[in-house]
Amino acid sequence: MLLLIPGPVTTRPEVREALCVDIAPWDPASRDFYARLCARVLALAGGRDGVHAALPLPGCGHFIVEAAIRTFLAPGEALLVPMTGAYSERMTRLAVEAGRRVVPLPIPDDRPAAPSAVAAALAADPTIGHVGMVYSETGTGICHDLPTIGAAVRQAGRRMIVDAVSAFGALPFDIARHPEVDAAVFTANKCLEGVPGIAFAVARVDRLEESAGNAGSWSLDLTDVYAHQVENWGTARFTPPAQVLNAFDRALDLYETEGGQPARLARYEANMRTLYDGVRRLGLSPYLAEDAQGPIIVNVHAPADPAWNLQVFVDALKRRGFLISNFHNTLRPSFRVGCIGAIAPADMARAVSAMGQVLEEMGIRRREAA
Amino acid sequence: MLLLIPGPVTTRPEVREALCVDIAPWDPASRDFYARLCARVLALAGGRDGVHAALPLPGCGHFIVEAAIRTFLAPGEALLVPMTGAYSERMTRLAVEAGRRVVPLPIPDDRPAAPSAVAAALAADPTIGHVGMVYSETGTGICHDLPTIGAAVRQAGRRMIVDAVSAFGALPFDIARHPEVDAAVFTANKCLEGVPGIAFAVARVDRLEESAGNAGSWSLDLTDVYAHQVENWGTARFTPPAQVLNAFDRALDLYETEGGQPARLARYEANMRTLYDGVRRLGLSPYLAEDAQGPIIVNVHAPADPAWNLQVFVDALKRRGFLISNFHNTLRPSFRVGCIGAIAPADMARAVSAMGQVLEEMGIRRREAA
Repeated sequence: MLLLIPGPVTTRPEVREALCVDIAPWDPASRDFYARLCARVLALAGGRDGVHAALPLPGCGHFIVEAAIRTFLAPGEALLVPMTGAYSERMTRLAVEAGRRVVPLPIPDDRPAAPSAVAAALAADPTIGHVGMVYSETGTGICHDLPTIGAAVRQAGRRMIVDAVSAFGALPFDIARHPEVDAAVFTANKCLEGVPGIAFAVARVDRLEESAGNAGSWSLDLTDVYAHQVENWGTARFTPPAQVLNAFDRALDLYETEGGQPARLARYEANMRTLYDGVRRLGLSPYLAEDAQGPIIVNVHAPADPAWNLQVFVDALKRRGFLISNFHNTLRPSFRVGCIGAIAPADMARAVSAMGQVLEEMGIRRREAA
Repeated sequence: MLLLIPGPVTTRPEVREALCVDIAPWDPASRDFYARLCARVLALAGGRDGVHAALPLPGCGHFIVEAAIRTFLAPGEALLVPMTGAYSERMTRLAVEAGRRVVPLPIPDDRPAAPSAVAAALAADPTIGHVGMVYSETGTGICHDLPTIGAAVRQAGRRMIVDAVSAFGALPFDIARHPEVDAAVFTANKCLEGVPGIAFAVARVDRLEESAGNAGSWSLDLTDVYAHQVENWGTARFTPPAQVLNAFDRALDLYETEGGQPARLARYEANMRTLYDGVRRLGLSPYLAEDAQGPIIVNVHAPADPAWNLQVFVDALKRRGFLISNFHNTLRPSFRVGCIGAIAPADMARAVSAMGQVLEEMGIRRREAA
């Protein structure tokens, strides 16, 4: 069974095998391992030792997004959120429930956020200290223009938190080129092809030091994760998901062997292209225009045929070995396919072929957008 | 290598093998699995469907302790914490950083908390709404008298949060007999012998419904975990650690096969007894008197001999296949051995024998407490 979902992704057998070990996190060998793993993640993000830090947090992407917001914004401070889709809505809820103020910036759901709109929103409201930006919006499949938006934030003298959960590892990111970024956050189980259970922030040390006391939560305080890392080399504050970390380290080996970020992006782009062109040949309509389509997730308009039924489609694909999402996060009905994980264009070509068989089986003749 | 630490514990090979699978959490098969797993946990805690709920939270024990405090105490409300040791201190910090008020109740570090002291503290301060009680204190190895303390809380008309992280699965717990308990919290990787990465609260539904809006954190709001469970059967709010959950389910199979809580407690007690008596035969002094010693963790006084060095002792045991903690949480220097996990009295007897060899090798002649 291949998982064609935006995560948890299909992993390679070597990664899953690395789960099968008992680990004592405070053993000296584990300390070496843990410190080396953090250093690897820091290097992947372009971070420099002493200037930036890679901070692991057990749990899921939502936890690390909340941790970054709580850490870098004091209670009541304002966060401008370009409303990219489902994950900007989730960032908004995380911030509001944590007692921060959110200024939503509406944007169309089928185009990347305009950097000029971000600049204008910041110019219009001097009370906004931070921008919360989703780099790759899992809901729509759009990847936003982080370099240009980051430049706008920088020029406005504001700070940024980047939700890179479904971007990091595939889309370029170099924190050294983004002095406006307080933290970029991500997890092991998307483009880095580990398993779920661990999240990371890559953050600026100076901003961590300035931000102590903001969080209002020991669990989700990145300044304390950092302080612990400095004072207790190679250990976590709390019991880490040891097997998940071991598998992630193996996943990073495979990532480097593949050729790192450029190679991974190229494979995902080839996956996306195979899918995008393939569903068009089947008569279906991708949700996004070609120039807005990112390499991570493809949404396809639900076909207009009255015989269409998403769960029936998903179940029939599953019987053929391909598991796609059985819900959609788009405004109009769609089906969603992840292009990430340990899959290659040949896998995607087989998936497209299976989709064609299933559409025939379901009797879907009207294939234009519903 | 056997891990003789209070968690993550040594697991059985079947549990680790269950990690080696890719899982799509929103697939109908996964929904059945997830709902069944929650029902199993609920049943283990004596919970009744509709009256209680088993609520999974990705991450570690600290996260679920904070989640329970945030959920059931409004900001500013007071929590009485019997100061049992390292984990009551951690509960205190979690509560204080979350903006709750902690009233510490000092108790000796070598005896269980006196229920009468809890009753007196509650009588003396009517502003205290909750007691935060560590059931098995990992720092000292003492298991506290939950039934009698619970009765005192009940009689005082107050509520209780139970940190059962290193107790649940081995020590008896039946939430139906503890109407004063809002939530008992625990993780997969202690006495239930899963791997780390997932925590649970077992909580009262009526109290969850009354507590909406307290948490000030979407991530750590158990009322929202519950609401999601009701509205979206068999799914998690956020990406769960899917492999860790699969392994936990396998661990619960093995738990039931062994004979559940009474059998697990009996094995751990036999492990503890083998260790406790064994180190005494080596001339060492257990930290606790026999009648205060719980079955989960044994601390042993560091011997008085000037040749004693904890890390040297730990390293030499490790070379013989036994990994114990390389730090202590007791007031006086000690070494700590976990009696839990997939280990049997025969393993513990071999560990004691290895300790004897190492003490000889290190030239430790004065073995009475330092």
